[in-house]
Amino acid sequence: MQLHSFFNSSTSYRVRIALALKGLSYDYLPVNIRTGAHHEPQYVEHINPSAAVPALVDGDFRLGQSLAIVDYLDAVYPEPRLIPLDPHQRARVLELAYLVSCDMHPVNNLRVLRYLQDVLGASPEQKDAWYRHWITEGMAGVERLLARDRQGDWCFGDQPTLADCCLVPQIANALRMNCDLSAYPRSLEIYRRALEHPAFEVAQPQRQPDYVG
Amino acid sequence: MQLHSFFNSSTSYRVRIALALKGLSYDYLPVNIRTGAHHEPQYVEHINPSAAVPALVDGDFRLGQSLAIVDYLDAVYPEPRLIPLDPHQRARVLELAYLVSCDMHPVNNLRVLRYLQDVLGASPEQKDAWYRHWITEGMAGVERLLARDRQGDWCFGDQPTLADCCLVPQIANALRMNCDLSAYPRSLEIYRRALEHPAFEVAQPQRQPDYVG
Repeated sequence: MQLHSFFNSSTSYRVRIALALKGLSYDYLPVNIRTGAHHEPQYVEHINPSAAVPALVDGDFRLGQSLAIVDYLDAVYPEPRLIPLDPHQRARVLELAYLVSCDMHPVNNLRVLRYLQDVLGASPEQKDAWYRHWITEGMAGVERLLARDRQGDWCFGDQPTLADCCLVPQIANALRMNCDLSAYPRSLEIYRRALEHPAFEVAQPQRQPDYVG
Repeated sequence: MQLHSFFNSSTSYRVRIALALKGLSYDYLPVNIRTGAHHEPQYVEHINPSAAVPALVDGDFRLGQSLAIVDYLDAVYPEPRLIPLDPHQRARVLELAYLVSCDMHPVNNLRVLRYLQDVLGASPEQKDAWYRHWITEGMAGVERLLARDRQGDWCFGDQPTLADCCLVPQIANALRMNCDLSAYPRSLEIYRRALEHPAFEVAQPQRQPDYVG
């Protein structure tokens, strides 16, 4: 198996956690999205038509979109399951995963922040305020979902799920951008637990071969 | 079953299509996101902690996030299935659904366009250019995925799937914003087919009780 990944991409980070939780080994193929490597014709045509990271190659099968990759891994390499089979448990996990992946991350990723700066001429302060605004709105929702539905040590149970695979990179990103997350104690507790878990540890940006400090 | 929905919300529209494809009846509860009804304490506390539409209430079970709702409906009301069971077929459907739902829609939704205007002072022309930029980038990816993997009359097969439930509202939205989509013939063909399908027809914004022209 091969993973096309960028060390600092939250979406790549999610998949690295999932692969590590399942104990799957893979070749790490760096794609530098800062220099636009994900737009190179060879990559778009042969690896990922979405022109993004991550992309998984499993034999002849090529797949983009981090959440589709985790779902695929769960189908083909089901132990441990990251998306529960029970419809109600599963719904809770997906609800939180989508809150992070659809409502929070897309608005604050590299290409959007660059557009704000390069095309709209946003100042560093305006970019920071933008970033914090969506983090605050999203994390408030995450914390409310956890307050209502959390079970066990992780988001939803005593084992990590897709919800944790999404939440932890998002929190790492927010902390790197110096956001104050003290209003979200449940989320922070899960994040601190993840820091001590081997699968989350090995998936961190600074542990990847393409890491630049 | 009850659906908290806003007529013009693409994410509500996805779920309305899914409910119609499954032939499920429900009470339509309008949530006016233009006036901030999704932030009212009663709604956030008792219906949807994500403070967004849509939200499904099925007996005692309350669920937000459109894609989590479709997954739940597929588990509990499986006919017809909108997310295939076969791991590879399923991956293709989810990949396109996420390209629309994670890469395209979140950057162009109401709250983001409002922030651009109200906080960053973007002009109408700058807002339009922003909208078109992400549509162009996303639709190019959608069209490449369809060129590589499309099967049958719809995105992936002879019956609509979650991919179609996501793509059709996104195209309707782009056309409403006067985007030129002629470079994406596969996507447009699917959209035109959807216009003639009863489940897609009944789910359209202009068919909802809260529609305002």
